[in-house]
Amino acid sequence: MISICEVGPRDGLQNESDVLSSDTRADLVNRLAAAGLPVVEAVSFVSAERVPQMAGAEEVVDGIERRDGTVYAGLALNEKGYDRLRDAGLDEVRYAVAATESFSERNANASVDEAVAGAEKVLARARDDGMRSTVTISVAFGCPFEGRVDPAKVVELADRLRAADEVVLADTIGVATPNHVRVMIEQTGAAGFHGHNTRNTGFANAYAALEGGATTLDSSIGGLGGCPFAPKATGNIATEDVVYMLEGDGVETGVDLDALIAISEWLESVLGRPLEGQLYRAGLFPSS
Amino acid sequence: MISICEVGPRDGLQNESDVLSSDTRADLVNRLAAAGLPVVEAVSFVSAERVPQMAGAEEVVDGIERRDGTVYAGLALNEKGYDRLRDAGLDEVRYAVAATESFSERNANASVDEAVAGAEKVLARARDDGMRSTVTISVAFGCPFEGRVDPAKVVELADRLRAADEVVLADTIGVATPNHVRVMIEQTGAAGFHGHNTRNTGFANAYAALEGGATTLDSSIGGLGGCPFAPKATGNIATEDVVYMLEGDGVETGVDLDALIAISEWLESVLGRPLEGQLYRAGLFPSS
Repeated sequence: MISICEVGPRDGLQNESDVLSSDTRADLVNRLAAAGLPVVEAVSFVSAERVPQMAGAEEVVDGIERRDGTVYAGLALNEKGYDRLRDAGLDEVRYAVAATESFSERNANASVDEAVAGAEKVLARARDDGMRSTVTISVAFGCPFEGRVDPAKVVELADRLRAADEVVLADTIGVATPNHVRVMIEQTGAAGFHGHNTRNTGFANAYAALEGGATTLDSSIGGLGGCPFAPKATGNIATEDVVYMLEGDGVETGVDLDALIAISEWLESVLGRPLEGQLYRAGLFPSS
Repeated sequence: MISICEVGPRDGLQNESDVLSSDTRADLVNRLAAAGLPVVEAVSFVSAERVPQMAGAEEVVDGIERRDGTVYAGLALNEKGYDRLRDAGLDEVRYAVAATESFSERNANASVDEAVAGAEKVLARARDDGMRSTVTISVAFGCPFEGRVDPAKVVELADRLRAADEVVLADTIGVATPNHVRVMIEQTGAAGFHGHNTRNTGFANAYAALEGGATTLDSSIGGLGGCPFAPKATGNIATEDVVYMLEGDGVETGVDLDALIAISEWLESVLGRPLEGQLYRAGLFPSS
């Protein structure tokens, strides 16, 4: 059994040029939860000025019809964001720390040490509140400013973030290759892998992450999203495609593949463009 | 060292709606050989009426500037095709046998037994002529008419085709998943894997094929091609993307990645549409 964390409503929509209404975003979260996805990253508690796609997080959460068994998660990048997330009543806080100084400075306006200190504060708050926590190590394989990332630095960073219930290694800009992913999951003991399919390695990387011992995979319905550092590039690995791959290999996910395909078909009409996911266009096999 | 067999000029172009001139096709073969690809499947010796994209195979071969070290291969599906291939002076004959009766009847108008008998004749001719030979087992994982394919039948078929220098397992319609591919390569001892990325599993399947012991991978520049059984689906795995994946993992291919990217950029202008390959759009990492 592999647990899929659906990040489409957050990492996916955050990188779309269209800004969807809070109602539509809540609708998306409800459809994803109904398809049986165990964890849905629903919102991000960040500045609406900085990330207009993520404005109105509380309104989105208000529109969620809570479903037993679904973990509703949100991204918070500081204590203020954590306060909002807790007040909104979410189940899990997700935090991010970059593996390189340049990415951390540009993305979080903080050094890596400062970002780790920020994570520690939020993780301590979450522990006190009995809330699940995940920390994602961004650009764990490659950084748009520094190139390849030293594996030893990522191992050390993962060690410093053990207070989180789960550590996730992220190939934020879609440059990793599968054997590297497998080795890094083994060496860090990270529970999860977050992959982008920017250079068509995303699904091989996900497969290799499981070989390395990962038990959770981040993915985005329809492959929603993109990459701010590669304007012509595609986004996260598509949830329905990764579920197809896993189920085909006999790995259970507990997710309803037909329901996922229906969501991508709906999303295509909402966004008015074909999505990157391929299964919803090619069809299930054997056809159901 | 993994050997890439470039199938864009044959399997790729055969499934494109545009018919390219013999000159352009020879130009493509020459560019691919110059990029260091060890094997290029240049043409198919089939009826021009049935497959207009492959008309004029001899003209294409005439336009090839032979390069030392490159193996120029062609597809032949009967002795007449083999005669043409040998007379044209190619280095390798590639033959195909389907794993299911329905696919064999519809595609080759022959039973599987008849197709094996045909392969045996051509393989004997090739051996006598000192020509390299490869047999591809089509629909080795799934068939559009029969669904999942019994692994035992594929193992038996591979055994019957041992007269070929290499046996290649083909996921012709892009339905396979990686662990299944790995196991099938192990069980058949096949040297090669031919994957389509129809459902985004193609690159994971290629990675898993190598884990299973494959030493050659078929791929198509830019991901050229499609699938006649899934009109909205994409084609072969893209050569430059698979080379990126392998080189990133430290697996040598002997291929010049910058040259491959330049070919896909050129092909985009020839075909007037973006190709499925992602690396040529996202860019190399680290940037070269």
